[in-house]
This record gives sequence, structure tokens and C-alpha cells, in this order.
Amino acid sequence: MPIENKTIDRAAREMLRRTADDGVKTVWDRLEEQEPQCGFGTLGICCRNCLQGPCRINPFGQPDRGVCGATADTIVARNLLRSLAGGTAAHVDHAYEAVEALHKLSEGNVNYEIKDEAKLKEIASKLGLETENKDMGELAKEVAAKAFENFGGHGSEGLGWLEAWAPKERIDTWAELGILPRKADREIREAMHQTTMGMDADPVNLLLSCLKQGIVDGFAGLKLATDMQDIIFGTPKPVQTETNLGVLKEDHVNIIVHGHVPLLSEKVVEWARKLNNEAKDAGAAGINVAGICCTGNEVLMRQGIPPATNFLGQELALATGAVDLMVVDVQCIMPSVATVAGCYHGEIVTTMPITKIPGAEHVPFTLEEADEQAQKIVRRALESYQKRNMDKVYIPDEKVSIVAGFSVEAIVAALSKVDAADPLKPLVESIKSGDILGAVGTVGCNNAKITQDSMHVEMVKELIANNVLVVATGCSAHALGKAGLLHPDATVKFAGEGLKKVLTAVGEAAGLGGPLPPVLHMGSCVDNSRIGDLLTALAAYLGVNVKDLPVAASAPEPQHEKALSIGIWAVAMGVLTHLGLPPHVLGSAVVAETLTGEKIESLVGGKFYVESDPIAAAGGLIAHIKSKRKALGI
Amino acid sequence: MPIENKTIDRAAREMLRRTADDGVKTVWDRLEEQEPQCGFGTLGICCRNCLQGPCRINPFGQPDRGVCGATADTIVARNLLRSLAGGTAAHVDHAYEAVEALHKLSEGNVNYEIKDEAKLKEIASKLGLETENKDMGELAKEVAAKAFENFGGHGSEGLGWLEAWAPKERIDTWAELGILPRKADREIREAMHQTTMGMDADPVNLLLSCLKQGIVDGFAGLKLATDMQDIIFGTPKPVQTETNLGVLKEDHVNIIVHGHVPLLSEKVVEWARKLNNEAKDAGAAGINVAGICCTGNEVLMRQGIPPATNFLGQELALATGAVDLMVVDVQCIMPSVATVAGCYHGEIVTTMPITKIPGAEHVPFTLEEADEQAQKIVRRALESYQKRNMDKVYIPDEKVSIVAGFSVEAIVAALSKVDAADPLKPLVESIKSGDILGAVGTVGCNNAKITQDSMHVEMVKELIANNVLVVATGCSAHALGKAGLLHPDATVKFAGEGLKKVLTAVGEAAGLGGPLPPVLHMGSCVDNSRIGDLLTALAAYLGVNVKDLPVAASAPEPQHEKALSIGIWAVAMGVLTHLGLPPHVLGSAVVAETLTGEKIESLVGGKFYVESDPIAAAGGLIAHIKSKRKALGI
Repeated sequence: MPIENKTIDRAAREMLRRTADDGVKTVWDRLEEQEPQCGFGTLGICCRNCLQGPCRINPFGQPDRGVCGATADTIVARNLLRSLAGGTAAHVDHAYEAVEALHKLSEGNVNYEIKDEAKLKEIASKLGLETENKDMGELAKEVAAKAFENFGGHGSEGLGWLEAWAPKERIDTWAELGILPRKADREIREAMHQTTMGMDADPVNLLLSCLKQGIVDGFAGLKLATDMQDIIFGTPKPVQTETNLGVLKEDHVNIIVHGHVPLLSEKVVEWARKLNNEAKDAGAAGINVAGICCTGNEVLMRQGIPPATNFLGQELALATGAVDLMVVDVQCIMPSVATVAGCYHGEIVTTMPITKIPGAEHVPFTLEEADEQAQKIVRRALESYQKRNMDKVYIPDEKVSIVAGFSVEAIVAALSKVDAADPLKPLVESIKSGDILGAVGTVGCNNAKITQDSMHVEMVKELIANNVLVVATGCSAHALGKAGLLHPDATVKFAGEGLKKVLTAVGEAAGLGGPLPPVLHMGSCVDNSRIGDLLTALAAYLGVNVKDLPVAASAPEPQHEKALSIGIWAVAMGVLTHLGLPPHVLGSAVVAETLTGEKIESLVGGKFYVESDPIAAAGGLIAHIKSKRKALGI
Repeated sequence: MPIENKTIDRAAREMLRRTADDGVKTVWDRLEEQEPQCGFGTLGICCRNCLQGPCRINPFGQPDRGVCGATADTIVARNLLRSLAGGTAAHVDHAYEAVEALHKLSEGNVNYEIKDEAKLKEIASKLGLETENKDMGELAKEVAAKAFENFGGHGSEGLGWLEAWAPKERIDTWAELGILPRKADREIREAMHQTTMGMDADPVNLLLSCLKQGIVDGFAGLKLATDMQDIIFGTPKPVQTETNLGVLKEDHVNIIVHGHVPLLSEKVVEWARKLNNEAKDAGAAGINVAGICCTGNEVLMRQGIPPATNFLGQELALATGAVDLMVVDVQCIMPSVATVAGCYHGEIVTTMPITKIPGAEHVPFTLEEADEQAQKIVRRALESYQKRNMDKVYIPDEKVSIVAGFSVEAIVAALSKVDAADPLKPLVESIKSGDILGAVGTVGCNNAKITQDSMHVEMVKELIANNVLVVATGCSAHALGKAGLLHPDATVKFAGEGLKKVLTAVGEAAGLGGPLPPVLHMGSCVDNSRIGDLLTALAAYLGVNVKDLPVAASAPEPQHEKALSIGIWAVAMGVLTHLGLPPHVLGSAVVAETLTGEKIESLVGGKFYVESDPIAAAGGLIAHIKSKRKALGI
């Protein structure tokens, strides 16, 4: 495959030429080696859930049943539910770690603090807790206790986070469909049980459970994680920095933080700053921390740490030979990073008990000894720097400026500069007037099957040219950042007239001396909850339901099970959700048609929409937004 | 495949001739249609956990990595862990339902009662609860509260059930290996997280998590379920009945209870008895309830309900045309039952929210309305009976007598007739003297890849001929029952001299007028906990560790993910565990060799042993028992 088909990212292309010259394999090489991929697995009609199997359904005839009698519909729906349980478990486990951190800090056992007391109070108040005249530590403890209740417990008790933050109309809709979740861990356990041999064979019943997993993911995963992290590390405010591999510095000790949970990366950032002089003693100009994937987004949003690249670039960052140490926590870490680092330079440090990689060093990370461990990791980077062969360093001269940090609070703060008394009014009026046609949240991954970043960037350019405001998270935000779309200049260059007018008015009122970027970076993948909060607030302001808003979601290059669980949460919220490639469900017409059809839309308001052409996808999203506008009479 | 290769069960062979004549497909036909099965799936080297896949590793060369860089070792270990999470989730969910029943009955909200107050007190006492002068309802509430704590909760809290019942030496061993579980649902959630893309790539770390799932399964699944069920429905005592399809009665309304949880089946049995006269009014001689799979074992053990057949026979029971209604709860229910019933006769009624089958009727079952629903189901059977075409009924004239109901309490009660003061003494002395060489627990499923029941029966015959006492559960016990091995006559016919002597002495002392059967039926699959309790008691009596006992476990015909989680629990307990066919792990030498090798044995005392020839397997188990005897100096 020519390099141009692998990625649109110029830095990535340079590095791919390097790895090709050096005979170092990357994710694209491995995809080529895997092709043609198994058609049964791709269609979702392969079942390995018992030892009478593995079974495969012939999409064109016999066999049309697995050994137990399961049909393609059953198998596809079961596989999807099990995948969603994986994605949901990942987010819930992430949220759990964050709750544990709040709990421990409230007991004074760990060296983390409450950076956003206002958010703590706001959350406590929403949970029905008394906040007046209360010590922050005490309040944190109470909030953590309420948060813990989302994981375990029994009876018919539901998710407190959902009850406090989901719109009433949604709760009623989900209750009517029988998909209002009980405790998160119970639902994950039940989904696993439901998908074992000899359990649920009804694809519709399985799909209802899929929706339930999505709701768990949204509230006991995404929302809970974001809330905890904002309390502990602060709610993001606009920050300006640069992105792409050019943020690595040849004369600095370069540390990459990679993974998803800020508990470790925040400490690494802190200690990299504190130990900067030690780096000078070691002969470097200083310590430079850059991020990859969502822990990168977390420290970008709150600390202005530059993102080096997104998911597909993780090996390429190492191929610069300039990364002295890459420290990882959880999720989306290619096991190949150890091999690539071995070919170039740099130490891979794993830190979490459930994420180890053969060939990597393991430095266990705990909340209790976070400072010691972060210091140790930073000092290992200094040692590694001293072993770096400068002749083998090649950092592409590619970086662009970005603005990030758009939490809901930050967006409201900017809008309040236009109308302090009624901050949502300028946004809503712009939507009503048609200056802003609607909004799309672009989220999710890279996937080597799709030219890196191409779907994100081309689709979003088309959307903003048509006056659609874009908010982004995760690897989508990285992609858009590398393409320059997280910068005010892009508003001038790419936005349609109406959108440009609004973004300029708000940006200038907010004292930015120019427009807001056309794409607002709202954070990591768990921060999709921020998009949910924004939609909920807009719907409440307009007096309509979320499903009636002229908005849509998109995972243009989906890859991870988490992207699927986020996607189905969006659908359950009532939002049309675009996917740039289909999940492994095409082997069942019932499942595929249900997920993308009128039935699910009539039940929950949302549905999936699969389109692999970026311009066509943008067109589909715009048509959807227009139909919603029409229904609203605007 | 000739019918003789499909099953050794004569009734099943008769029915297979019938289904063949009628052109009705069964599980064996579907297996033939699936052959050749996918080699990648069979070896475990296929990964479908993200949308860059599906990926397959070439066991003979390239590609040797998935798209993300995962090796065969990583993929095999992840797949195994995810399967174990499925099996564990099934058992934990089962236990949860039983705990909920105890909790609700303690509050007087449901029409279930405490049938075994002594067991309730014993359990409460072991949990450290005050039992004197306490109302049983109050005590049940306290025990249920303690039981609920095994599912959810946070911090480093572990499983209360494990702490109360696992041997201290085991707890220390597991703690040292870092595999002492926290709460059950947290561990299931974490295993799902750990197996998502970009997480754990270290096969050894993943295998340690596999062991942890097994420990969760054993204590928060098996043991907890058995304890709750004994409290509510009574601890089994020896019962005598018959088994095989001949227990169906042409002139009766025949109801099959199929699934795993006794909460429903006990009520169906109760209401079948109460409504017997209505059946007479409907023209039948009465109502006949028979069981399949483990809910069948539950009502066999406590109510003497005859088992109709085991897993592979579920379609064949329907092919008699005499089953008026098959009511199912959860697990091991082939979706094909609806199709087969449609070809012959009988209604399939599903009852649980996570087990629906297209073509079946769904009658929701709840604890609160259990009586009404059980009545409704029984009356549906009466209606169905009236539609039965008697000309199409064919019930094979095959049934044999069995004795079941051997809880640990029942075994001890029998032994105490020999030595009331020291009941375990006669058993231990017989082991020491060599009259009993050792013991093997045979458990688990049927699997259409193995001639039905053949591994169970041939291996067990060889074991008992060599003076090995066999205890059995699940479909293994069914198989041995159909082969006549759950009857005292089999002791006379098949047992070695030493074993015969002991079983005769105990049987006669217990007033049975003859020997005990050579195979003691200890219950359902969750009742494997009874085997664990027995081993723990024996080890404590001898002052040794479980791993030092001259015992072994075997799942001769494993099929379900639950069989794997039970198996790895047995290994974690320190027991050599035989499997009649390998799980999907042979694509990784690291995983396969670790699971069956000296390393795991040195760490936990147990390991897996795979052998598909029954006589060779018996030989291997006997050799193991002899080596353990030698080490003990007996």
C-alpha cells in the first residue's frame, strides 16, 4: 500500500518512509499481512463461546446454524453484546479508578487534591447532598461514597449518576423499554452471562441489552470518570499549544505519556517540571512531556501538554529515536511499542497490574506512592536520554498550533461574554437563525483500515463549510488538531459564513482577538460525557428532547470496543451516530437493519448510520440535521 | 457419522434413528455440517476484539502478529480469560439470584421458606454472626447481607465467602501470587477490561488473572449458590429414582424442567403435584415432571425428580412427542429446542429476561409471583397435553434406577453410622489402608465432538475397578446414572475389591441393606462446591493441604465456558484436573504448556491434564493419585 494511502499526516508519512527503510514493521504492515481478513469474523458470524465450536454460519446457505442451533442473528447479536461489555467494562473500570482516587484523597491517604471545589459542590448538590458550610474533604468523601454506589449493590437500585444527570424523558423511555440499568458491574456480569452458550437466542432481546450496556457506559463510565477527574485535576479551560511529532525536542529528554487515565500522567507532568534541573545536569536542555491517546488529551486539556500524535502514530513517535521513555497506563497501547522501541530507542514503562507488555519494564503505579513512582519514571527517562544515539534521531519538522480545553464550563464562559445573563442564548439564537446549522460531535479512534485521519478531517471540513459546528474528543480531536482545525485560522479558512460570523463574535467577545476554532476540542474519550451534558443543557434550554436537536455524532474511524459502547450510548441518548466502517454485524440482516433502521429510531430516537465516504457522510449528517431543523420548525 | 459414534446411550440411539427418519436435525447433524471447524478458532489464535481485526495468527509462520502487534500467546491468553469471565459471570449471576431469593424471603416478600435451619445457622456461625436466640428470618437477612457483599464493594475488600471457607494455606498461596480476588463483579469487569485492545499483552499475567476468575467462580459462584439453595430448599439427602427417557410417561402430562437454577423448577415441581387432579380432569393419569441439565439435578437431589437425560439429549427428549412442555430458566439451553418441539410436540417456555428463544413462549418468572407463574406454566402443559397426537408418541423403554442426593452432610451421615464419634475416620482409614486408592470428581458437560457419555462412563468404570471412589456432578452424573453407575449394583459389578469392601461396610451400617453406589452423585454443576468442601474437610482431618490429597478432578466431555471456569478453580484449589479435550489454547505453546506444566503445579499445586482416551485418562489419574499417596507415605 502506498504511504499516501496509509495516512494523510505528513509527519506520519515521513516516519513511515523511515520505518520502511529500516525494515521496521508498523501497524499498517501488520494489517497488510493479515489481509484478506476472515470473512466470518468480519461479518460477526463466527462463534467461539463453547468447546463444541468454533462455529461459522454460511451467509449464502448451509450451515445456517451453529452446533447448538444458534442462528446468524443470535451469534452476531451475542458477539456485539460481548464486545460492548468489553468497552463498557473499560470505561467503568476507568471511572472506578477515578472514584477510588477521590475517596482516598478525601481520607487524606494520597497526595492528590481537590483542584475544582466549585465542581465538587455542583456535583454534590446535584446528588442531593448538603454543601453549605462543609469541609471540602468531607464533601469529597460523601460524593465518592455516592459514586461508588454506581458500581455495586443489589435490588432494583439504579445508577445514581444517571438519575441525577439523564433527562427525565430519557429515563422514562429507557424504563419503558426495560433497559434502565441497575448497577454497572451487575449489568456487565449479566451481559457476559447472557452471551454464554445456551442463553439468550433472541437477537432483539440481545440488542436491548446492547442499548443497556451503552447507557451504563455513558453514565457509570464516561460521565462518572469526567466528573471525578474534573474535581481532582480541575475543569479544563482553553489552552494553547502545538501538536504532531514536531513537538518532540531533540535537545530535551522526551517523555511520552500514553494511555487513558490522568492519575499517572498528571503526576508525570508534575515531576517532569520539578526535575527539570536534573535533566540539565544530565546534559539535556530540559524535560519535554508529550501525549498520545486520551491520557495525552487529559494533560492537554488541563496542563497544555502537547499531543505528539494519535492512536496510529504511537509506533511512529518511537521511530524518531527521540522518545527516551514512553509510560503507559491502560487501553489502546499496541503491544508492538516494545518491539519498535527496541529497534530505535527509548524505554517502554508499563504501570498498571492489568496492562503488561513483554519487553517493557513494569513500574507498578499506586495512588499511595504516586509521587515516588512518577519521580522514578522521570529519572528513568533521564537515564535513557543518556543512552540515546543522537545520530539516529530524526524528528519531522511538523507541528501546528491548537487551542483545546473546551469543557462545557469553558464554552459557557466564552458565551457569557456575549450574554452574561443568558449565556446559551447566543448559541441557540444562532442555531435558530441558521447561522449555525447544527452540531456534530466527532469522536473515537484511528483504524488502519482507513487512511489515518482522512475520514475525520475531510468529513469535518465539509461539515464546517456547511456551517455545522463540530465538537471533538479522543483521537478524532488529535486528527483534527494535526490538520489545523483546532485553530482560529481554520475558522477563517474553512468555516461557512454563518458559522464564521458566530465564532468570530464569540471569540472577540471572549477577548481572543479573533474567532473561536471551528472545532472545539472537548477532551478525551470519557469526555464524550461533556458532549452529552452540552446536548442535555441545550435541549433543556429549548424545552425539547435531546433526540429532537439538530445534532449528530460520528466515529469516523472506529476501532475499539469502547467506540462501540460510546456509540450505542449516543444512540440510546437519541442521537444519530455515524460510523465510518461497520462493526462486525453485517452477517445478520436483523441486527444490521435494527441498528440502522426506523424501528430503533422510533424507540430511542437515535440509530447508527454507516458511510465510509467522508463527503457522503457529511452530506448524510447535514441532511439529518436539516430534517431535525424542519421538525423543530426552524 | 454412524449413530453408535454419536452416543452410547441406548435411548438416545433410538431417538436418533427416529429423528433421522423424520429428517429432523439434531446437534450431531449440525456438528457434521460445521466440520471442518475453523483451525484458527480451535487453536485460539483468532482475535475479534477490535475493528482493525479480525486477526489470525499463522501457527506455521507469518503473520505472527495481529494488527495491533498481539502475538499468538497474547491472543490465546486473552481469549481464554474472556471465556473464563463468561463462565464465572454465569455462576456468579446464578448465585446472585439465589442470594436475592434468601434476602427477599427474609423480608417476607416472597413465598419461599427456609427449609434447612441448621445449615443457615452453620453458615451464619462460620461468617461470624451471632446465631443464638435469633429469629430465622432475621438470621437469613444477616446472611443474605453478608452474601451480597461478595458481589460489589470497593477498596481491597475480598470475598467473604472465600475468607470463611477457603483453607488458610490456599488464601496465603493466592495472596502471594497476587490472585486473591476482590469483589466478584469487580473481577469480572476487570477481566473484560484487561482483554480489550491495547491492554494486557503478557500471557503469564493474563493466566494469573485466569486463575483469579476461577477462584471467584468457586467461591462467589459455586459455593455461594449451593449454600443459598441448601438453606432455601434443604440440604440433599439420599434419594432413589430412575433416569433416562423411559421416565417419560405416555399417559401423563410430561413437563421437563431444563436449565440451572432451582428457584423456578422447585415451584414447578410443587405445583405439578398440587395440580395433579386437574391433569386427571384433562384426561391424563397425572403430571410427570422430569429434569434435564442442572435444574434437573437440583430437583433430583432434593425432590427425587427423575432426570430425563443430559445436555446432548435435550432435543431427543422432545423427539419422543411426549413432552408437553419444556420450561427453561438459564444456561445450556440449545436454541434448537424450539425447532425440534415444532417438528414433534410440546411447548417451549422461557422464563428469564436474559434467556429468550425465537419460537418459544415467554412467561416471565419473578420471585414475587413465583406461585402464580408456576401454576400458569403447569396449566399450559395441561393444555398442551390435550393437543398431543398420541400416534406420534414414542418413548424408548430405557430407564435405570439411581441413587442420588449425596451432599457432604449426607456422606458424613452415612459414615457416622460406622463411627458416630469420628465419621471421617472410616473413609480416611480406608484411604490410608489402600482399600480406597483415592478419589476423582467427574464433572461437566457433554460435547457432541465426543461420543455422548462415553468418556464419562468408560473412564469411571476403569477408575472404580482400580478402587478409586468417584463423586460426580452435572451432566457427568447424568451420564453415569444412565449407565447404571449411580446404583449399588454397580459396586458389586464394577468396583475393585477394596472399594467394594468399604462401600458395602458403609452402606450396610447406614441400613441400606447393601453397598453405596461406586459413584456418589453430589449434585449440579454449582454443587462442585460440595466436592471442594469435602476435600477441604479431608485435608483438615489429615492435617495436610488439599493439593497433597490423593485426588483429582475430571471434565471428560467439556463444552461450556462454565466448565472452564470450574476447571481452573479446581486447579487453583491445587487439584490435577483432567479435560477430555483441550480448550482453544493450543495455538500458544506458552499458554498450553503453562496450564499443563510443572510451573503452575509448583505455584498452586494443580494443573490441567488433557487426554481424550478414557482408559489412558483413567491411567493418568491413577498414576497421579499413586504419586500423591507416595508423597504422603501411604
